[in-house]
Amino acid sequence: MPHFTLEYSANLDARVDIGKAVEVVRKAAVETGIFPLGGIRVRAVRCEHYAIADGNPDLGFIAMVLRLGEGRDLASRQKAGEHVFKALSAFLDPVFANSKFALSFDIQINDKEMSWKRNNIHEALKETSKVEAPAHG
Amino acid sequence: MPHFTLEYSANLDARVDIGKAVEVVRKAAVETGIFPLGGIRVRAVRCEHYAIADGNPDLGFIAMVLRLGEGRDLASRQKAGEHVFKALSAFLDPVFANSKFALSFDIQINDKEMSWKRNNIHEALKETSKVEAPAHG
Amino acid sequence: MPHFTLEYSANLDARVDIGKAVEVVRKAAVETGIFPLGGIRVRAVRCEHYAIADGNPDLGFIAMVLRLGEGRDLASRQKAGEHVFKALSAFLDPVFANSKFALSFDIQINDKEMSWKRNNIHEALKETSKVEAPAHG
Repeated sequence: MPHFTLEYSANLDARVDIGKAVEVVRKAAVETGIFPLGGIRVRAVRCEHYAIADGNPDLGFIAMVLRLGEGRDLASRQKAGEHVFKALSAFLDPVFANSKFALSFDIQINDKEMSWKRNNIHEALKETSKVEAPAHG
Repeated sequence: MPHFTLEYSANLDARVDIGKAVEVVRKAAVETGIFPLGGIRVRAVRCEHYAIADGNPDLGFIAMVLRLGEGRDLASRQKAGEHVFKALSAFLDPVFANSKFALSFDIQINDKEMSWKRNNIHEALKETSKVEAPAHG
Repeated sequence: MPHFTLEYSANLDARVDIGKAVEVVRKAAVETGIFPLGGIRVRAVRCEHYAIADGNPDLGFIAMVLRLGEGRDLASRQKAGEHVFKALSAFLDPVFANSKFALSFDIQINDKEMSWKRNNIHEALKETSKVEAPAHG
């Protein structure tokens, strides 16, 4: 159940393609190999009103949080987190080069005893992969 | 202080009445009987940009988180959580029937030592119930 | 890495200047003296759909959460939290006077072992303060 949420200052509209940013995170999350594909959900929340550091409205930020289920050890979480962070950070190199900007990423663990889910995407992905699988002779 | 936040993919605009969804959650929260009425706050956050599973833009999600104060035992929280989840899930049956969709619900506990609040809704509800109470002979 | 997020009901558009509210929080956070200036990020998330208490659409809320790094003792966090909460609460006095409203504030601690950041604002602030510092004879 990896849930990535990126809150971002609205002044990024002119500096970053946020649609691409969430796709960068999604791809990097897949690459870690520790998340079930059908559970990956990345989204961005635009914040029209913000006040950063000394209040200069040109400052920008993206603050990403991953909420994750229990069951992976710390080393695995750190390795996966590092991979996703590096991918997003590299994508944002032009933003760092051209503006004053703060990127952050934190992982939280969901309590499995207070967690519910219903999901028909896993099943759909299995069917898709069957349909798309090459025929074997 | 029950705070329900539903983050949702923007493609649900055409599939779900989100205003009704938050009302379904509110009613179910009241029905649990474990939350003070004046403290219930349900809201939804629309996510224009998202990337789910294999990246197919037709996939959708609602991810609900409840932030809750301390002071209720795990069994009570689980029973209440189950009730609210089932209500929302049932409301979303048509979405599951007609699209690939992921619903999730997680409960977090707020630390009472780092919590502040101010609320004149509790008092207003008491006054309303006085005014609206039937006259007794 | 103090991250303040204010979720608010959309009916506040006509009652509060949310741009001023985030600035009130930013200034109060600076005044606490326990946060590095370049790390302070305050933002607001507008919630078009909400359902509060008995469902009356005139009820309003702001729910603020601060995500904070480890390394400060509880007393320091409580004192800083109290200061910021009082500042925001005072700013909202007219809203409390004229409507039924709920304000809340909770602090969460980020796990330092699952935290990443990249920030060129700190450096920029140092340069600014050098440029703006008065010349000494």
